Amino acid sequence: MSNRIISLRTVDVRFPTSKSSYGSDATNSDPDYSAAYVSLETERGNRGFGLLFTIGRGNDICCAAIEAMRDLVIGSDLDDIKNDIYEFYNRFRCDSQLRWLGPEKGVVHMAAGAIVNAVWDMWARDEGKPVWRLLTDFTPEQFVSCIDFRYLGDVISAEEALDIVQINESSKHERISELEKYGYPAYTTSPGWMGYSDDKLKILCQEALEQGFKHIKLKVGESLERDKKRLTLARSVIGDDVKLMIDANQIWEVDQAIDWVSELASFDLWFVEEPTCPDDVFGHKKIRDKLKGIRVATGEHCQNRVMFKQLISNDAIDVVQIDSCRLCSINEILSVYMLAAKYGKPVCPHAGGIGLCEYVQHLSMIDYVRISASLTNRVIEYVEYLHEHFEDPCIIRNGSYMPPMSPGFSIKMFPESIEHYKFPKGKAWAKN
Amino acid sequence: MSNRIISLRTVDVRFPTSKSSYGSDATNSDPDYSAAYVSLETERGNRGFGLLFTIGRGNDICCAAIEAMRDLVIGSDLDDIKNDIYEFYNRFRCDSQLRWLGPEKGVVHMAAGAIVNAVWDMWARDEGKPVWRLLTDFTPEQFVSCIDFRYLGDVISAEEALDIVQINESSKHERISELEKYGYPAYTTSPGWMGYSDDKLKILCQEALEQGFKHIKLKVGESLERDKKRLTLARSVIGDDVKLMIDANQIWEVDQAIDWVSELASFDLWFVEEPTCPDDVFGHKKIRDKLKGIRVATGEHCQNRVMFKQLISNDAIDVVQIDSCRLCSINEILSVYMLAAKYGKPVCPHAGGIGLCEYVQHLSMIDYVRISASLTNRVIEYVEYLHEHFEDPCIIRNGSYMPPMSPGFSIKMFPESIEHYKFPKGKAWAKN
Repeated sequence: MSNRIISLRTVDVRFPTSKSSYGSDATNSDPDYSAAYVSLETERGNRGFGLLFTIGRGNDICCAAIEAMRDLVIGSDLDDIKNDIYEFYNRFRCDSQLRWLGPEKGVVHMAAGAIVNAVWDMWARDEGKPVWRLLTDFTPEQFVSCIDFRYLGDVISAEEALDIVQINESSKHERISELEKYGYPAYTTSPGWMGYSDDKLKILCQEALEQGFKHIKLKVGESLERDKKRLTLARSVIGDDVKLMIDANQIWEVDQAIDWVSELASFDLWFVEEPTCPDDVFGHKKIRDKLKGIRVATGEHCQNRVMFKQLISNDAIDVVQIDSCRLCSINEILSVYMLAAKYGKPVCPHAGGIGLCEYVQHLSMIDYVRISASLTNRVIEYVEYLHEHFEDPCIIRNGSYMPPMSPGFSIKMFPESIEHYKFPKGKAWAKN
Repeated sequence: MSNRIISLRTVDVRFPTSKSSYGSDATNSDPDYSAAYVSLETERGNRGFGLLFTIGRGNDICCAAIEAMRDLVIGSDLDDIKNDIYEFYNRFRCDSQLRWLGPEKGVVHMAAGAIVNAVWDMWARDEGKPVWRLLTDFTPEQFVSCIDFRYLGDVISAEEALDIVQINESSKHERISELEKYGYPAYTTSPGWMGYSDDKLKILCQEALEQGFKHIKLKVGESLERDKKRLTLARSVIGDDVKLMIDANQIWEVDQAIDWVSELASFDLWFVEEPTCPDDVFGHKKIRDKLKGIRVATGEHCQNRVMFKQLISNDAIDVVQIDSCRLCSINEILSVYMLAAKYGKPVCPHAGGIGLCEYVQHLSMIDYVRISASLTNRVIEYVEYLHEHFEDPCIIRNGSYMPPMSPGFSIKMFPESIEHYKFPKGKAWAKN
């Protein structure tokens, strides 16, 4: 019996998070954290799961996009994919008609990413390993062969990437042991949502300290007065030693960002995130150059590796915030980690949402073991909600992500959760 | 009776153009020119039509995206829209949940554009004017109030735009008369598709000359030998006076583009189009700087005005090729024409496909009358197929687009065409 994929199923799952201002910021006032969830199954019964994250309306469009890619998936053999997963990944990017809808951006890019990540999950389950261990066990050559270097040729080559991986090879087991013992450092965004009251902000900052977090992020951009008040309150609770970051969620024009953030410089900000349009590489560069001393971060809306190439290689940003669902699967994400390593930029992945924390822990652990080999200035975002819907949720201990030990990509949701939050017919929505 | 929009309908219409290699190039080997077609109707019976262009697979995703925006459209009053069309346009961009799927790029951006353009069509029909005359009749203030300047504040302001329009105001009727007499210059891509034989290339070049075209574009990038052969053949037919352009459709890495195009420099190329990834602003700038003398063009895959801002204001390109369906309607497209005018770059719109020629003729005529006030180095792409499906098709005379005279945006298709080419149940597809 072959091991061909014979089933692809998609579900629109949405959580009514907007009811509690959870996730609210200057741009995204009322997110309902949602997933376009995909399940694959082979003839022999191998299964793989993936999702892409959205914030509510439009999640159905993403499901439609996954469905539209059915013909690129059904009939593919897991054994063939294991021999050349790049080919499988590449067929989505190169589909001669679908590519018009991107190319390599937005809905179709995210949909392809959800499918390819589901195949990574299937592969890791088949090997009985968590995804981060599957990839850290690859030979250096096999590892680099998965990475997408298309359109990056002017700044990095596969040969350079192989050199980086080979240099780290002899010490990789030390780093694996270290991760298993101490985990990977996290920062929390839970206290700082825009819609929270001042009291709630203070209480949650205190809780974050008690949980061992050393980095806390607040949403800003509604008004300068309110930002100053919230930052003052936060500093009054967390003191001067804990790192404080701010996130403007694209609210400002380029010059406005420079003026506004300059007004907040006295709060000793570790970075400012998404100061303006995520597409504006030159704008970020101008902001970074003018704000000397406050580091600039972006990436949760950075559409693909070509945009990251420009942001990184032209010193437009200091902190690289990949999003595990916006980029097209591990195959593209690793190329961004590679670029960041070459140019000495830390990657601090975007997380929160639903499933993002589960995904990104694997990615940063792969980076630490095989690519950057460094934890300096590197923290993974953490938000504490919605993990209970996953069979293998991420685990935080003393402010760090503990490495996943179960086979797969940690993204499989409980069938009961899917059933309950299915949109629009699940009980969570029927009640409204 | 109010004039609220009470009906939104979407149809997936596809034409099997891949059968004849029509539209084939280095990246897009087998396009089936397609439209996600939208029809709106108000309570009083006003109707408006719009479409977005794709090349086949995934057209259903675009229809799903239009459907997902239904709640932003139904109930809007045409009279209110006339008072503030920017507000209507802006609600798609700013939807606090849908924007996660872009923001402002790909499927959701194109879907919003199709809807807003349908409203422009409805408005123009209601006034009994073609769209280009509707907008050239606006007061300067009304005209500028339609334009999207969000995220452009570091390079252009509404005040500067108003200055440009006011300077042109006193002479605009001369340019309207000139357009009505001579039309707007076009170039043709019909002879140069990649899949055509050498004989077909020569015959079609000859025909283009006879039709009065002064600019011809060929697809390149399959192999250097073949490119040289095809360019030699074309030059042997068209001589040295006709402008010759090449289009690589994103096939090259940045450095490869520089080497490859340098090898073709002796053919006296008027511009090279899409030499690499459309997202790579710095890459285009490097190519342009190295290829001194051969102008660089891009834009048919340029996702939004922020990318154009960077390409234009940083001298990364010479020729601006807006796509009428990729950008979000007239409201965003005018901001790109405005940027191009400020920086002295000609706009030569992408067309062909289906409906693109019908749309862009209006846009460039508006530009000539109100913004750039120049025809120098400006030509609109023209491809001769599929116009027979439109009730008010574009008309080419002596190599120029003659101005549309019927009310609307020229984009309404014959019901019989829609019925026949509807995918997958229309007769054109059932036969396969």
